[in-house]
Amino acid sequence: MDNFVFYSPTKFVFGEGQAQETGSLIRQFGGTKALLVYGGGSVKRNGAYDAVTKALQAEGISWLELSGVQATPRSGQAYEGIELVKKEGIDFILAVGGGSVIDTAKAIGFGSPYDGDFWDFFRGKLPITKTLPVGVVLTISAAGSEGSDSCVITQENGMLKWGSPKTDVIRPKFAVMDPRFTCSLPPYQIACGAVDMFAHICERYFSNTPDVALTDRLCEALMKTIIDAAPKAYADPDDYAAHADLMWAGMLAHNNSCGVGRQQDWSSHQIEHELSAFYDCAHGAGLAVVMPAWMEFVMSHDTMRFARFAVNVFGCEMDYANPANTAKAGIAALRSFCRQLNMPQTLAEVGGKAEDTEAIIAHRQEKGFPFGGFVPIHEAEMREILHLCQ
Amino acid sequence: MDNFVFYSPTKFVFGEGQAQETGSLIRQFGGTKALLVYGGGSVKRNGAYDAVTKALQAEGISWLELSGVQATPRSGQAYEGIELVKKEGIDFILAVGGGSVIDTAKAIGFGSPYDGDFWDFFRGKLPITKTLPVGVVLTISAAGSEGSDSCVITQENGMLKWGSPKTDVIRPKFAVMDPRFTCSLPPYQIACGAVDMFAHICERYFSNTPDVALTDRLCEALMKTIIDAAPKAYADPDDYAAHADLMWAGMLAHNNSCGVGRQQDWSSHQIEHELSAFYDCAHGAGLAVVMPAWMEFVMSHDTMRFARFAVNVFGCEMDYANPANTAKAGIAALRSFCRQLNMPQTLAEVGGKAEDTEAIIAHRQEKGFPFGGFVPIHEAEMREILHLCQ
Repeated sequence: MDNFVFYSPTKFVFGEGQAQETGSLIRQFGGTKALLVYGGGSVKRNGAYDAVTKALQAEGISWLELSGVQATPRSGQAYEGIELVKKEGIDFILAVGGGSVIDTAKAIGFGSPYDGDFWDFFRGKLPITKTLPVGVVLTISAAGSEGSDSCVITQENGMLKWGSPKTDVIRPKFAVMDPRFTCSLPPYQIACGAVDMFAHICERYFSNTPDVALTDRLCEALMKTIIDAAPKAYADPDDYAAHADLMWAGMLAHNNSCGVGRQQDWSSHQIEHELSAFYDCAHGAGLAVVMPAWMEFVMSHDTMRFARFAVNVFGCEMDYANPANTAKAGIAALRSFCRQLNMPQTLAEVGGKAEDTEAIIAHRQEKGFPFGGFVPIHEAEMREILHLCQ
Repeated sequence: MDNFVFYSPTKFVFGEGQAQETGSLIRQFGGTKALLVYGGGSVKRNGAYDAVTKALQAEGISWLELSGVQATPRSGQAYEGIELVKKEGIDFILAVGGGSVIDTAKAIGFGSPYDGDFWDFFRGKLPITKTLPVGVVLTISAAGSEGSDSCVITQENGMLKWGSPKTDVIRPKFAVMDPRFTCSLPPYQIACGAVDMFAHICERYFSNTPDVALTDRLCEALMKTIIDAAPKAYADPDDYAAHADLMWAGMLAHNNSCGVGRQQDWSSHQIEHELSAFYDCAHGAGLAVVMPAWMEFVMSHDTMRFARFAVNVFGCEMDYANPANTAKAGIAALRSFCRQLNMPQTLAEVGGKAEDTEAIIAHRQEKGFPFGGFVPIHEAEMREILHLCQ
């Protein structure tokens, strides 16, 4: 186990009806005038917008709104929010939505107290040391940004998806998590969310760090829960227990409680970011294509870890004579799980084309090679993984 | 799953050599003059005292000392600390030790800004709303107080062990967790600590709340890790990985990440507190006696949960024809685990006598009956459980 720091000072307020606490939570963390950031109409349909604005009114918190945040959020919206904050004397950013909305809120949060271009932080020019407080009312179980120490924004100029530096400074002050808000989501979004959170654990689970027995088991506990809950939530909007499990699992999958003290990978995410940029596919859908392909490519690097994944996560039988068979069965089981959720299996299903491969690799080159902690991925390896996605 | 709030704003700084961060951590959380609270000589032998005081000097943090905190910490030491804080203008409490030291530091922390008798908080006269900041350098993996929202102090007048009200206000600001400090502990203390943390999870695992699939699995992941790591740490002071697993497991077992959204029990702890008060036995040793007896007594309340415990935690084979057999096998496996760590099995081994039963029950009466969330324990039930301890 490696040395680590774990600092997750987010107040999680979980369960049905908890959005009524939003106003008093903002007050508790020093806010008086909020920027309410959200996406499209879903927060108006699922009751989140009404519950939140009622709670703000009750507490006497005034607010301005920034709406229309897209999936795979763009830098333009963050710039717009930063300008609004500076002009209007806003002192709290409230995200009502999923990962894209929260990530935009985070970027506005640390971009506002800075005089320069907030993209400087993404480029690593200087560390993030200050942010306006950010609060969250979560309406999609997926990205885990409600508890995480990072955010991902797409730079419109070049369509590059950049992850911010990881820092505890930008963890939200609070996250209201009412599973009911997720019950009315289209099944496709529920599926994408489940695959995303599963991937967040895989990126941590496949590690070269020895002696990480506890986090290994925590990862497995989470993955088993997602495998169990996702098809139920996908099939039944009224299955509160399944939606609640997914919501809490999504947070735990990415607040790094399962990743402390171990090298992490993140190759599947890096490759998927290119698919999103090229084909504008949903992040979870892209991961459903990339992750099993990545696994097939790297499996031989640590066959026994993949065998363990198969046995402990998917309940495959161990083939002691030939563990590679078990390892392969685990990857096949992951594919079945994704198929059960009607997720895409191939590049073509997310609009991808084999002939784009070199352009994708060249685009990635702008962020540099290699990436990946478990197995370093250079151009050649990325080419092979993209080939396995076909 | 029940609604819940989870707020764990403690900064955990984990791994070898991390005590050198103590000074800058105190500074980060606003401290300039600390009260260094510790027990006996072990922190001087294991290097913790030297590392910490060096770090304080390096950062220019001045300090006073309160030493001699006993296992099963007494109210007297907390009163002494509170007086010192008030007289000397101390603004930070630093605990260097295990649960007893940390609990004493917490009591000093919330007792100091209060003009009345700090025992008022334990009696529930008023809620804890303020504390001096408390930091921890952990040297025993056991109580989990480094990340918890409560503390336990023994009122010397009557020798009653009282738990404080649970409140996030008293969670430590930071906890330095260097597993090396635990390597030199006597095996007996390592065993007591392992049983204590195992019990902290059992108190949460045995619940009547339905639909808690995720926390059930997290509990099982922790219990399996303790079962795996404790005998290794017990046998080998140099097994860093095992000591590290135990240290992180001890924190997770009691910061309530495994207990959110579910009713909890705490009967074994309540009964053990009486054994500690009567026989001054180590908390973990008392739990090794009480916990299996409690399990035998309540098993029939939910045989299938005990069968699950047996299968998922101890790897027992499920007897589908007679699940009670499996349930019993799980309790037997817990007894074996305790025996493997040379923990006591019977009341007599912790100095207990059958003839004290009524006096113990009468003593408990001062705190009231019933207790226990899974199965309510009145006088009659407590009598039977004590009988099963013989």
